Amino acid sequence: MTITEIARSMKLAAPLMAASTNDIRVAALKSIAKALEDNKTSIFEANAIDLKNAKDNGISDAVYKRLKFDEGKLKSVLDGIDQLVSLPDPVGKTMLKRQLDDGLILESVSCPIGVIGVIFEARPDALVQISTLCIKSGNCAILKGGKETANTNQALFEVIKKSIIDAGLPGDCLFKAEQHNEIDELLECDKYVDLLIPRGSNAFVQYIMNNTKIPVMGHADGVCHVYVDKDADIDKAIRIVVDAKTQYTAACNAAETLLVDRKIAESFLPKAYEALSNANVKLRGNEEVTKLIKVESMNDDEYNTEYLDLVMSVKLVDGVEEAVDHINRFGSHHTDAIISENDKTAAYFMQMVDSAGVYQNASTRFADGFRYGFGAEVGISTSKLHARGPVGLEGLMTYKYKLYGSGQIVEDYSNGSSSFHFQDL
Amino acid sequence: MTITEIARSMKLAAPLMAASTNDIRVAALKSIAKALEDNKTSIFEANAIDLKNAKDNGISDAVYKRLKFDEGKLKSVLDGIDQLVSLPDPVGKTMLKRQLDDGLILESVSCPIGVIGVIFEARPDALVQISTLCIKSGNCAILKGGKETANTNQALFEVIKKSIIDAGLPGDCLFKAEQHNEIDELLECDKYVDLLIPRGSNAFVQYIMNNTKIPVMGHADGVCHVYVDKDADIDKAIRIVVDAKTQYTAACNAAETLLVDRKIAESFLPKAYEALSNANVKLRGNEEVTKLIKVESMNDDEYNTEYLDLVMSVKLVDGVEEAVDHINRFGSHHTDAIISENDKTAAYFMQMVDSAGVYQNASTRFADGFRYGFGAEVGISTSKLHARGPVGLEGLMTYKYKLYGSGQIVEDYSNGSSSFHFQDL
Repeated sequence: MTITEIARSMKLAAPLMAASTNDIRVAALKSIAKALEDNKTSIFEANAIDLKNAKDNGISDAVYKRLKFDEGKLKSVLDGIDQLVSLPDPVGKTMLKRQLDDGLILESVSCPIGVIGVIFEARPDALVQISTLCIKSGNCAILKGGKETANTNQALFEVIKKSIIDAGLPGDCLFKAEQHNEIDELLECDKYVDLLIPRGSNAFVQYIMNNTKIPVMGHADGVCHVYVDKDADIDKAIRIVVDAKTQYTAACNAAETLLVDRKIAESFLPKAYEALSNANVKLRGNEEVTKLIKVESMNDDEYNTEYLDLVMSVKLVDGVEEAVDHINRFGSHHTDAIISENDKTAAYFMQMVDSAGVYQNASTRFADGFRYGFGAEVGISTSKLHARGPVGLEGLMTYKYKLYGSGQIVEDYSNGSSSFHFQDL
Repeated sequence: MTITEIARSMKLAAPLMAASTNDIRVAALKSIAKALEDNKTSIFEANAIDLKNAKDNGISDAVYKRLKFDEGKLKSVLDGIDQLVSLPDPVGKTMLKRQLDDGLILESVSCPIGVIGVIFEARPDALVQISTLCIKSGNCAILKGGKETANTNQALFEVIKKSIIDAGLPGDCLFKAEQHNEIDELLECDKYVDLLIPRGSNAFVQYIMNNTKIPVMGHADGVCHVYVDKDADIDKAIRIVVDAKTQYTAACNAAETLLVDRKIAESFLPKAYEALSNANVKLRGNEEVTKLIKVESMNDDEYNTEYLDLVMSVKLVDGVEEAVDHINRFGSHHTDAIISENDKTAAYFMQMVDSAGVYQNASTRFADGFRYGFGAEVGISTSKLHARGPVGLEGLMTYKYKLYGSGQIVEDYSNGSSSFHFQDL
């Protein structure tokens, strides 16, 4: 079957999946957890093949670590499933109940989005997280993972698919695409696919956004900032800047630019330079910065650079106003932090910075579905529409309005023989 | 100034507008209401010029009625402003407050989307409704109305703009575009405009959707259905079908297709035919229908037609399952109604039909922001992302996550020296 045919039959399965009870969806999740544990030997064997292929292709240590699916990764996906099991059912929540007039009741009720296409990087744990989030939220999904984990994904998917069918969910609700060229076919399926979630490089996400009529949720880049205010606790600032830059450089929530209040630059910058250099971070700065610390020189128009590496831009600003202006102009509306003991300054920063996450005295690396208590995430959105920030179950839901009448027609309300009497119930 | 320059300066004004207090926004709304009343003579005079030009151009009666801005229309926009004044402030609502760990507090807080471009049809009341919804929700807006109401729009906009500046809101927060070619320039402003709301013909909305990277909210077509079940109250069914088709044929929530349960077709169809014919509705149906009533013959693949006129498609189906299948296949996910006294059948229909509005025993014409008690609407969305159905204040909001820390770094949670203790506050 082609991807178009798969998507078409999934669209027909979507109302059945949406009507499934929480009991059945939770049973499916528990069954998946048990089956992953029961079949871990064959999953690890499949992963060994992927790892061997990766080594033969001379893959880097960082990528190798990401491809590996071992007891530790298994435990973390099982923990995630446990959390999803215990989270309340997101389907069928009544969000509004309003009497419009006698015998005319309006409700808005949460329901799954329908058919979701997720294209994700070569990380076997991502396949489990995304599938289980879609199952818990009553959505159908077409999954396409990175080819470097093809064998592991196949082993994991077989286990998941068998478990959902055993639990009584429609078998058509999950499909794993295997060929890279199927992505382009998926992009054409706007009649059947309600939402695309691409994860990967800036160029890849841009490609998806520019080549489909299907709504896309996600983010192309993550140019996150840490602004160190004149009222900062310097020790906190140093710890947070080092963590935000180095804890996982390849992540979208890693900081790329350090902004420093000019008033404390002379005392703070040498300390930051020392700490970051010790963590192997190479700094870059404009002319003013190069006069204070030994860094590579950069132009002012380069401050929108996302390094995803042990490199960081540095700039001095005249207080919080200029920091906000810089972030709103050069940032990507992802996650930005102020380090300040002055709550008034921080409140201004958090009000005025136009980003999905605005932090006071914490590392930008906290921008993550698990760390926010969402169980897991399908991705992080820098869009302002629908979901913003880490996207968990809520971002996979929509709603519909149900109107219960007893024969009412609009003409009566138009000619004045009836009138509305709104009352929230 | 070009539209690009306007949009750029509006983007800079957006954080100030978002930070404005409800008191100032409400003062602006009250000031607009008073100024509209005070200046009604000059507004009516401007409208008289538009009406004369329209007559000279041989415009239809229906369009003429829409262009007209008289005491009745003024009263209805003033009523709308009154409702908006009394609705709670949608800005700054705390939607989530969660302790992640000691001294690490996550909040999600509602905030305006930012800069919104609205392109709407020639209806002067729409300009007031859209402007006041944007003001109440703390958004900036670029407005482009139909050229047929240019003089009225100019008079209304001058009053609105002066009122918001007097109230202390940034003057840059509202702009009225005047030239049709400015629409294409607006579509290119994806760096500055956060959302586009196009209203108008299917072809126009499709053009907008296909020619911009800015997210678009709205609907291209409205193929709404009324399904008359075997357990319908026939009198209710007739009244609702006639209202849904004829109360305002040009509206997107007018019904285009009548589905009838085959079990009652022989008794129901002649009655429906008589009532609809008396209301000047021309019916069309496939071969099976033409055998029961005298209607124009149509093919089965024409059931996705949006007439926006006194014309209606008719089809017989085998009960609620086939009705649902037909609607999900041929409909536009806008608003669909079942007429049935059987609540179980209706519940199935309302669960399985994949539309923004699903109604039991009420006319599809109720799909409207005012009738839902939202005060007004900027449009109706058939998208499943973000807002669905009539879009009032809530659809103009997004949210941001605020994280308040005391120096926390992710490395501590990664290496196990700290761990999360989630607790909703």
